[in-house]
Amino acid sequence: MGASVLYMSMSLDGFIAGPNEGPGNGLGDGGERLHEWIFAGPPTGEGGVPGRPPGVNGTVMDEVMETGAVVAGRGTFEPAGGWGGDHHDGVPIFILSRSPEDEEARWPLVTYVSDVAEAMAAAREAAGKKDVLVHGAGTAQLALAAGVLDEVQIHLVPVLLGGGRPLFENLGPDHIELEPVRVLEGEGVTHLRYRVAS
Amino acid sequence: MGASVLYMSMSLDGFIAGPNEGPGNGLGDGGERLHEWIFAGPPTGEGGVPGRPPGVNGTVMDEVMETGAVVAGRGTFEPAGGWGGDHHDGVPIFILSRSPEDEEARWPLVTYVSDVAEAMAAAREAAGKKDVLVHGAGTAQLALAAGVLDEVQIHLVPVLLGGGRPLFENLGPDHIELEPVRVLEGEGVTHLRYRVAS
Repeated sequence: MGASVLYMSMSLDGFIAGPNEGPGNGLGDGGERLHEWIFAGPPTGEGGVPGRPPGVNGTVMDEVMETGAVVAGRGTFEPAGGWGGDHHDGVPIFILSRSPEDEEARWPLVTYVSDVAEAMAAAREAAGKKDVLVHGAGTAQLALAAGVLDEVQIHLVPVLLGGGRPLFENLGPDHIELEPVRVLEGEGVTHLRYRVAS
Repeated sequence: MGASVLYMSMSLDGFIAGPNEGPGNGLGDGGERLHEWIFAGPPTGEGGVPGRPPGVNGTVMDEVMETGAVVAGRGTFEPAGGWGGDHHDGVPIFILSRSPEDEEARWPLVTYVSDVAEAMAAAREAAGKKDVLVHGAGTAQLALAAGVLDEVQIHLVPVLLGGGRPLFENLGPDHIELEPVRVLEGEGVTHLRYRVAS
């Protein structure tokens, strides 16, 4: 069975978005800095959209795109326009929502779920042998607290944002031990992969 | 001339000490977790004190001990018992204090200075061709704000502390860009070295 893996770009001071997040400003002020490494590829995509980034960064993006299901929160999903209803390759998407019954059934691939453990179980089932892509700070925190996050893949960006949304907060006082799995040095980013100790 | 280099052990969630720091609890609750990698060496030192850690971690510790001066804050210096008046090899120590004239002249190697830029200039002068060891969260923040920090060496420890003293806070809204210099994978710690972009 695959692993549930959090993939997040984070500044060295721990932020995954800049200050003043809101409608129309989903990454917060200056938050796009954290995603530059993803868009550093040659403009080979449709409409001049950058293609796969070169080198190690491309390898890591390939891993993201090889996941078999997605678990995220509304705070990630909605500013991203629901990824147009398809994050990649038509894999099922599980979005955490406090009142899933009130959510509009707008996207066929999307299931709204209130409980993170339930969402993760459904995503694992759907992903089969593939990993599950976990995304978003709130979802990460809930998944860690519920003990349903297997791995953490941080794309550590060499910048101090000085403010914004922290990835790790509200974790409670107990230490969560991590086991280093892999360090990859990409262009403008260091990819740190950890297993969450059980 | 050498560089001013911040050396700090930090958890993946950005803390350099656990919660409830205070007299007799200088590292905060559970904060000793961040320094385990330093004390993982064989007990070859005097009185059974662990010696130089093996491998990469030893190399990094050697670099710390090859610096030619120290700049730190009272919040680092005092809980450490002033390092007995000698951090290493009798190099000069510059301690930031709001009222240096009131400080007791207890340690011959220690000079109290109120201004971080002044402290750094004096330390650089004293260190000559060697690097200056910068230590402590408050000192790091002041040195970054004053533009007198050349490099940042983070010993990234694979644990989420969940609370404590953050290394990077109060930095203001302007991004501080860093240039990755080196990544070293030690036993139980990843050493990330950056140059502060000017």
